[in-house]
Amino acid sequence: MTKAAIILSGCGVFDGSEIHEAVSVLIHLSRHGAQAECFAPDGAQPQVINHLTGQTAPGETRNMLVEAARIARGRIRPLRELHAADFDAVFFPGGFGAAKNLSSFATQGAECSVLPEVERVLREFRDAGKPIAMCCIAPVIAARVFGTRSGGPGCAVTIGDDRSTAAALGAMGARHVSKGVTQALVDEANNLVTSPAYMHAAPIHEVYEGIGEMVDRTLSLVGAATR
Amino acid sequence: MTKAAIILSGCGVFDGSEIHEAVSVLIHLSRHGAQAECFAPDGAQPQVINHLTGQTAPGETRNMLVEAARIARGRIRPLRELHAADFDAVFFPGGFGAAKNLSSFATQGAECSVLPEVERVLREFRDAGKPIAMCCIAPVIAARVFGTRSGGPGCAVTIGDDRSTAAALGAMGARHVSKGVTQALVDEANNLVTSPAYMHAAPIHEVYEGIGEMVDRTLSLVGAATR
Repeated sequence: MTKAAIILSGCGVFDGSEIHEAVSVLIHLSRHGAQAECFAPDGAQPQVINHLTGQTAPGETRNMLVEAARIARGRIRPLRELHAADFDAVFFPGGFGAAKNLSSFATQGAECSVLPEVERVLREFRDAGKPIAMCCIAPVIAARVFGTRSGGPGCAVTIGDDRSTAAALGAMGARHVSKGVTQALVDEANNLVTSPAYMHAAPIHEVYEGIGEMVDRTLSLVGAATR
Repeated sequence: MTKAAIILSGCGVFDGSEIHEAVSVLIHLSRHGAQAECFAPDGAQPQVINHLTGQTAPGETRNMLVEAARIARGRIRPLRELHAADFDAVFFPGGFGAAKNLSSFATQGAECSVLPEVERVLREFRDAGKPIAMCCIAPVIAARVFGTRSGGPGCAVTIGDDRSTAAALGAMGARHVSKGVTQALVDEANNLVTSPAYMHAAPIHEVYEGIGEMVDRTLSLVGAATR
């Protein structure tokens, strides 16, 4: 049975994992009979956003792991316990959590840093030749870790067709390829699969379909790796 | 275009709306081209549950509408603004929010009360002959409002096959019909469609499929009503 790790960063598009995307990943993995396990960093979110008003909730503190547990129905472990040796592939849903919590892309763009635990996990999976799947804004993390600017091999990703994000990807030494919401891009050199999801202003069932394509392509790579 | 209202009660299975179920409702409605709008009561949750530990988070307060906005990506209105005249059907995902926040079923069983705003909405949709769809534990609310024990006409619902919940439904003057996770029950006399969802310990893709069946059957009733 294929074992998939899913990296969450909270619960909600504006300060954590995008919920629709995370749930879509879970449904598609389950549809394929893959065993999914969720992980999140055990640390405070940099901020809490009131999703009704879009404003920062002053003085409020929430923990990424505790909030992500809402998406995972309590079945989640701290990211430090994730080791590539125990899984066949790793999935990163999007949401601002990918750009605020797992990395500082939202505020620092191409100069961003990546949470050390996240960087470790990405390197472990890549070094083991195991697929990495990312959607929405999450591919910026791969660009920062694997881009030529950081001394990496470079990588190809899609975040849809947003020009300023694509430019930042280029500045990090990654190659951006425009894709529609129901499409996924496969970077075979890195076993890296990306899909735009809500980087397009698309209806939820198209986001679901695109994530299905991402999951299908990723599990195909797992199949290829074990043949 | 069919207009669907979705009633949320927070964000998380243990103290609000079950996230996978709510997202599944949204995906299936979107797949059918229906326009969905989310609503939640604008009031404090009776409790906040830490979903990592399963324990009450002491001293913490969260608002149902503000938390539900996470599932709705900020596009949500207070339940008091929902009027059946503006919609073709109404959907209630499950989660303990249905049994703790929208009603007191979790603590009072067959003696439970229902939030007056919720009762008003249910009566408005039923009186207008517009379909009501509920999954997981949410059908207990219909049993309390429409059951013969409350002087209502009675109704038929499914919550899967849990015996003690089925007994409580009977005590409220509703008829329980056992169903599998991918099935839905249609009570044609009340235009009421129910599906077990996570009342079964089922994989997420089967919950998604069962909610798809619930949405299909509900939208069919809307079609019948407008023919």
